[in-house]
Amino acid sequence: MQRANESASASASASADKFEEEVVRVLEQARELHESGASLLWKISNEEQSLRQKAISLESSIRRVRSSINSLVSKKLLDPKFASKAKLLNLCISILTDGEAAAFLPAKAQGRFLRMFLGPVNVRASRKEVQLKVKEEYNSYRDRTAFLFLLFPLTLLILKSWIWEGCLPAFPVQLYEAWLLFLYTGLAMRENILRANGSDIRPWWIYHHYCAMLMALVSLTWEIKRQPNCAQKQRGVELFLQWAMMQGVAMLLQNRYQRQRLYTRIALGKANRMDVVWGETAGVDGQLWVLCPILFVMQGFEAYVGLLLLKTAFVGVVTEWQVICCGILLVLMAVGNFINTIQTLMTKSRFKAKMKRSKSKAELD
Amino acid sequence: MQRANESASASASASADKFEEEVVRVLEQARELHESGASLLWKISNEEQSLRQKAISLESSIRRVRSSINSLVSKKLLDPKFASKAKLLNLCISILTDGEAAAFLPAKAQGRFLRMFLGPVNVRASRKEVQLKVKEEYNSYRDRTAFLFLLFPLTLLILKSWIWEGCLPAFPVQLYEAWLLFLYTGLAMRENILRANGSDIRPWWIYHHYCAMLMALVSLTWEIKRQPNCAQKQRGVELFLQWAMMQGVAMLLQNRYQRQRLYTRIALGKANRMDVVWGETAGVDGQLWVLCPILFVMQGFEAYVGLLLLKTAFVGVVTEWQVICCGILLVLMAVGNFINTIQTLMTKSRFKAKMKRSKSKAELD
Repeated sequence: MQRANESASASASASADKFEEEVVRVLEQARELHESGASLLWKISNEEQSLRQKAISLESSIRRVRSSINSLVSKKLLDPKFASKAKLLNLCISILTDGEAAAFLPAKAQGRFLRMFLGPVNVRASRKEVQLKVKEEYNSYRDRTAFLFLLFPLTLLILKSWIWEGCLPAFPVQLYEAWLLFLYTGLAMRENILRANGSDIRPWWIYHHYCAMLMALVSLTWEIKRQPNCAQKQRGVELFLQWAMMQGVAMLLQNRYQRQRLYTRIALGKANRMDVVWGETAGVDGQLWVLCPILFVMQGFEAYVGLLLLKTAFVGVVTEWQVICCGILLVLMAVGNFINTIQTLMTKSRFKAKMKRSKSKAELD
Repeated sequence: MQRANESASASASASADKFEEEVVRVLEQARELHESGASLLWKISNEEQSLRQKAISLESSIRRVRSSINSLVSKKLLDPKFASKAKLLNLCISILTDGEAAAFLPAKAQGRFLRMFLGPVNVRASRKEVQLKVKEEYNSYRDRTAFLFLLFPLTLLILKSWIWEGCLPAFPVQLYEAWLLFLYTGLAMRENILRANGSDIRPWWIYHHYCAMLMALVSLTWEIKRQPNCAQKQRGVELFLQWAMMQGVAMLLQNRYQRQRLYTRIALGKANRMDVVWGETAGVDGQLWVLCPILFVMQGFEAYVGLLLLKTAFVGVVTEWQVICCGILLVLMAVGNFINTIQTLMTKSRFKAKMKRSKSKAELD
C-alpha cells in the first residue's frame, strides 16, 4: 500500500516536472514571438518612414515641374506642343496616387464626423486591393440603396391608395424615415472613409448627406396626422415620397453611368480608381444630356416641395417647427445640388473649349 | 531681328529639352518608388503571415498545456500546488495578447453592426500603442458622456418645474432623445471597434446599447403631449429622465472604479490593457459593495419605469405602440443588466472561495 502510494507520488512528481518543462518552453516561445513581432513592427515603421519621405519629396518635385511648365507655356516662352508631353506627368501622378506607394503618402485627415462616431481609429487601408474592395462595396451599397429608394416610397404610395384609403398610417412612414436616417448615416460614413482612402469625392455630396441625415431625424419627430381631412394634411409627406421615388430612378441611372464614365476615365488615365464620379457629374459625355434634364427636374421638384412646406408653415395650416426645418433643408439641398451640377458642367465645357482651341491651333500650325 | 528670333527659339528648345529630361527623371523616380513600395508591402505581408502562423500554433499549445494541467489537477493526479505554477501560463497568454505579437493573432471577426455602417473597412490597429490610444479615448468619451448624462436630464427637470410650469415642451425632449441616439450609436461602434482590437468586453453591454439605440429611435417618434393635464400624461417621460439622471451618477462612479480596478488587475497580470471592466462588474473589491446596491436600485427602477409604461398602455390611457415598445425594451434591459451583474458577482465569489480553500489547504499542508 505504501509502495503504491510512493510510486503514484513519484509518477505525479515526474509528470509535474514534465509539465513544468513544458510551461517553461511555451513561455520561452512566447517571449521569442513577442520579440520578433516587436522587431518586425519596428522595421516596418522605419521602412515606411523612409518611403513616406521619398513619396513626399517626389510629389513636391512633380508639382514644381508641372507648375513651371504651365507658367512657361502661358508666357509663350515654351512651345504649346510641349505641354502635351507634360502629360507624362499625369502618368507620374497616377502611379503615385493609384500605385502601391500611395499607402505611404500622408493620409488626408479623417474628418470630425468619423471621429465623433468612431473615435481616433484609423480607417485608411494600407493595401491598394483593400482600398479598392472598400470602393467596390460602396458602389454595390449604392446600387442596393437606389433599388430600395425606389421600392420603399412606391410601396407606401400604392398601399396608401389601395388599402389605407388615402391616409398614411404613422408606423410605416416612421419606419421609412428611420431607414432613411440609417441609410444616410451609412453613406456619410462610407464617403468619409473613401475620402480618407484617397478618393476625390466632392465635399458637397458629403454635406448633402449630413443635411439629409438631419432631415430624416427631424421628420421622425414629426407627427403624422390621422384625423379626418388627412389627405390635405399629409400633402407634404406625399410630395416627399414622390420626390424620393424620382430620386430612386435617378440614382439607378447615375450609378450605371458613373461606373461607365469612371472606367472610361481610368482608361484615359484621367482618374484613379478611388475616384467617385458622384451623382450629378455622372454620365459618359453623350449620356450626360439624358441625365441632366432628369437631375434639373429633380432639383426643381425638391425646391418646390421645400417651398410648399414653408408656405404651409407660414400660412398657418401646420405650425410645427419640423415643417419649417424640413422646408429650409430641402431648399438648401436643392440649391446646393443645382450649384454643384452647374459648376461641373462649366468645368466640363471649359475643358472642351480648351481642347477644341488647341486642336484647331495645331491644325493651323 | 531674325537672329533674335532664332536665339529665342534656340533657348526655348533648350529649355524644352531640359524639362523633358526632368519629366523623364521624375517618371523614373515614381516608377522606382512604386516598385519599392510594392516590394515592402509584399515583404510585410510574408513576414506577417509567418508570425501569424507561429502565434496561432503557440496559442493552441498554451491551451493544450493548460487544459491538461487543469484536468490532472481536478483528477487529483497532480499536486494542487503545481497549479499555482501554471500561473506562468497566464503570463504567456498576456505576453501573447498584450504584447507586440498580438497584432499577428487572427482578429476577432468584425461584427455585422460595423459592416452595416462602415462597409468592409478594417478598424483593427496593428500597433499596440494605437490600440491603447483607442482604448483611452473610449474611456474619456465615457467620462464626458456620463457628465452629460447627468446634466442633460437634470436641466430638463429643473426647467420643467421652474419655467415650464410642470409641462415639458416637445423640442428640448426630442433634442435630448436625438442626443441619446447619437450617443448610443457612438458607444456601440466604439465597443465593436474595441472588440475587434482584442478587448474582452462582455457581449451583453453591446446588445444593451443596441436596445438603447432602438429605444431612443422609438422615443423620437413618440408624441410629447402638451394638452392640459400634461403632468399625468408626461409621467413616463419624467420617470425616464429621473432614471437617466441616476444612471449618470452611477456611470461616473463606475468609470472611476473601473479604471482603478483595471489598473489593479493589470498590475496583478490578470487583465490586459485592452480589457473593459464595464459598468456593473466594476469597482475595486471593497468598493464593489458600495456600487452594487446603486446598480441594483437602478435596475429595479428601470424595470419599474418599463412596467409602468406597459401598464399605462394596457389600461388604455395612452395606446401608442411606442409606449409598449419602450416598456418592453426597458424591462428587457433591466433583466439583462441584473442577470449580468449576478453572473459577475457569482464568478467573483466562486473565485474567492477557491482562493480561500487553496490558501487554507496550503496552510494545513
